[in-house]
Amino acid sequence: ELIHSGEVDVYELMNDLIGKMFSTTFGKVNHHDGALLEIPSDKLAMTTDSFVVNPLFFPGGNIGKLAVYGTVNDLAMCGAQPKSLSLSFILEEGLPMDTLWRICQDIKLAADECQVNIVTGDTKVVERGKGDGIYINTTGIGPLISKFTGPETITEGDAIILSGDLGRHGMAIMAQREGLAFEPQIESDCTNLWAEVKKLTQAGVNIHCMRDLTRGGLAGCLNELSAQASHKIHLKSDAITISEPVSSACELLGLDPYTLACEGRFVLFVSNEYKDPVLQALAPTATCIGNVGKTCKQATVIITNELGVERFMEQPLGELLPRIC
Amino acid sequence: ELIHSGEVDVYELMNDLIGKMFSTTFGKVNHHDGALLEIPSDKLAMTTDSFVVNPLFFPGGNIGKLAVYGTVNDLAMCGAQPKSLSLSFILEEGLPMDTLWRICQDIKLAADECQVNIVTGDTKVVERGKGDGIYINTTGIGPLISKFTGPETITEGDAIILSGDLGRHGMAIMAQREGLAFEPQIESDCTNLWAEVKKLTQAGVNIHCMRDLTRGGLAGCLNELSAQASHKIHLKSDAITISEPVSSACELLGLDPYTLACEGRFVLFVSNEYKDPVLQALAPTATCIGNVGKTCKQATVIITNELGVERFMEQPLGELLPRIC
Repeated sequence: ELIHSGEVDVYELMNDLIGKMFSTTFGKVNHHDGALLEIPSDKLAMTTDSFVVNPLFFPGGNIGKLAVYGTVNDLAMCGAQPKSLSLSFILEEGLPMDTLWRICQDIKLAADECQVNIVTGDTKVVERGKGDGIYINTTGIGPLISKFTGPETITEGDAIILSGDLGRHGMAIMAQREGLAFEPQIESDCTNLWAEVKKLTQAGVNIHCMRDLTRGGLAGCLNELSAQASHKIHLKSDAITISEPVSSACELLGLDPYTLACEGRFVLFVSNEYKDPVLQALAPTATCIGNVGKTCKQATVIITNELGVERFMEQPLGELLPRIC
Repeated sequence: ELIHSGEVDVYELMNDLIGKMFSTTFGKVNHHDGALLEIPSDKLAMTTDSFVVNPLFFPGGNIGKLAVYGTVNDLAMCGAQPKSLSLSFILEEGLPMDTLWRICQDIKLAADECQVNIVTGDTKVVERGKGDGIYINTTGIGPLISKFTGPETITEGDAIILSGDLGRHGMAIMAQREGLAFEPQIESDCTNLWAEVKKLTQAGVNIHCMRDLTRGGLAGCLNELSAQASHKIHLKSDAITISEPVSSACELLGLDPYTLACEGRFVLFVSNEYKDPVLQALAPTATCIGNVGKTCKQATVIITNELGVERFMEQPLGELLPRIC
C-alpha cells in the first residue's frame, strides 16, 4: 500500500493514518488542537529540527531515530531535561506504508528510551516529485535542570572533553549513499545524549558549555565556539579517538575525520576542577582533548600532533555532504 | 540568486542565510542549541504544523503568514496565549533568494502582529525535485489562560457560534491554482484568531470548545466534534454567512461552501447564558448558527434551510483540494 495524494483520497487517508497508525503507535496524540502540558518550571528550553536524511535507513539508525535523538540531544545540550516532542511528517505520495510504519515504530522506541512524550503531531502529503519519501520535523521542550549553558561562559583554562569517538555517522551515511562496503561495516553513532548529560548533572558538575557534533564535526563545532567565546582552543590529536574503520575509510577517501558529522557525540567545557568528575561520569569513552587558551578576535583552533607539531584545525568548507540528518 | 544545494556551497550558504537574513529579520534566534524561555505557568499548550501550501503566494496571504497564523490559531483554540514559535525551513535548491526574503518578512510581520516570538529555528536544503520551493514547520507553545477546552465539555443546549463568513481561503487557493479569475477577486480569510479569543477571555466567557475551520471546513469540523462529543448538532442555514463571490464561485464550480477551508474562522460552543456576550465580543461578523442536541452514537449534523427542510451536513469526502495549507 502506497501513500496517495491528489484530489480523491487524501482526506480519508489522513484520518486513516491518524486514527490507526499514529494512535496505535503513540497513544492518544491530539492531532487537531494541540496538547496540554504540565511542566512545573518557569524556565524551559525549546529547540526544533527538520530531518531530511538520505537514505532513510542506514547502518545504526534511520530518519525516525535521528528525529528523536536530534531534538532530545539539542535540549540536553542546553542543560534541559527533554520532556515533550511534537512530531510532524511531510510524506511524499508513493511512500510505502510499511516504511512509514517502521519509522513510526522506531520513533516510539527512541522516545521511550529518552523518556520523552510525543504530545502533538501533524501530517501533510505532497505529490510525487515534491518530496523525498518522508521529511520529519520534531520540536522539543523541557525544563532547565542546570544553568542554561552557552559559549559566553567559556573561560581561559577550561578543560575540553569529548564524549567518544568521531565520525561514524557521517561515514555511515556516505558509505550507504555511495555504495561503499567497508569491512567491518561502519555504523552511525546516533544515540541519546540525555542519558550522558543526566550523569553529569547527577555528578554535580558545573558545565560552561556543551555542544553536540553534528554538521561540520569537531572542527566545525570548535571553530564556531572559539569565535563565539572569543577564545583560542588548543587540542592534542592523540587524545581524540577515531575508530580504526573510520580512520581507514578517511584515508582511502581523502577525508578529514575531524569534519565528519556525529549524531551522538558532544564536547563540553568545564573548569579544571570538574575534569576528573566528568571523565568518570562519561567513562570509559570520554577523553580530555585540550584546553581553552587566551582571547582572540577570530576563530582559532590549534591542534598539536604526537610529534609536537602544531597546525590550525580549520572550519570545514566546501566538501561537506548534504542531507546527513 | 538561487538557493543552491550539493556538495560545494551548502554549509557556507547556511551560515550565510542564518547570519544575514534570519538574524536581520528575526533578531537573535539561536539556530544551534535551542532557546531559553521564561513562561511563568505550569500549564502550557503545544501544537505543531507543517505548511506545504501551493501556490506559495495567493490573494490575501502566503505560506509565511499562514505558518504563523496557523500555529497561533491552534494555540488560541486550546485557550492558550501564543508566546513562542519555532520556525523550520525545508528549502528546495533553486528557490529564488528574494522569495525567501519576502516570506521571512511576512513571517516577521505576522509574528509581531500576534505578539509571538520566534525563538529558535532550523534550515535544511534539499536538491531540486525533492521539495517544492519551501516547506515551513512552526511549533508553538503558550500558557493556558482559560480552561483547556475540548469536545468533552460540549453539552446539550450549547449555543454554536461561527466567527465570520465561510470558504474564502479554500476558494482563493483553488482560483489561483486553476487560473480562475473571479470578479471581485476572492481573498483568503487567513488571519490571527488570538485577537478574537483574547476578546472572549476579557469578556469572561466560559467556553466549552473552540475549533478553527481548516481542512474540511465547517462540515468537517462539526462532524468531527459531533462524533467526539457524542452529541447531535442542529444548524440553521440562514445564520451561516457566505460572501456573494464565494457563493457564486461555488455554484459555478459545483462545490459545497460548507466544506471549503478557512484559515481565520472558528466555531465555539458555550452555554446559552454566554451567547450574547460572545456575539458582542465578536461583533459584527459572528452569528449563532445553531445548538447542540441530544446524545448520538455517530456524527450527526443536521442543517435546516430557510424553508424549514432538514438535511444532513455530511463529513466531506473525496473531492478536497490537497495542499491548501
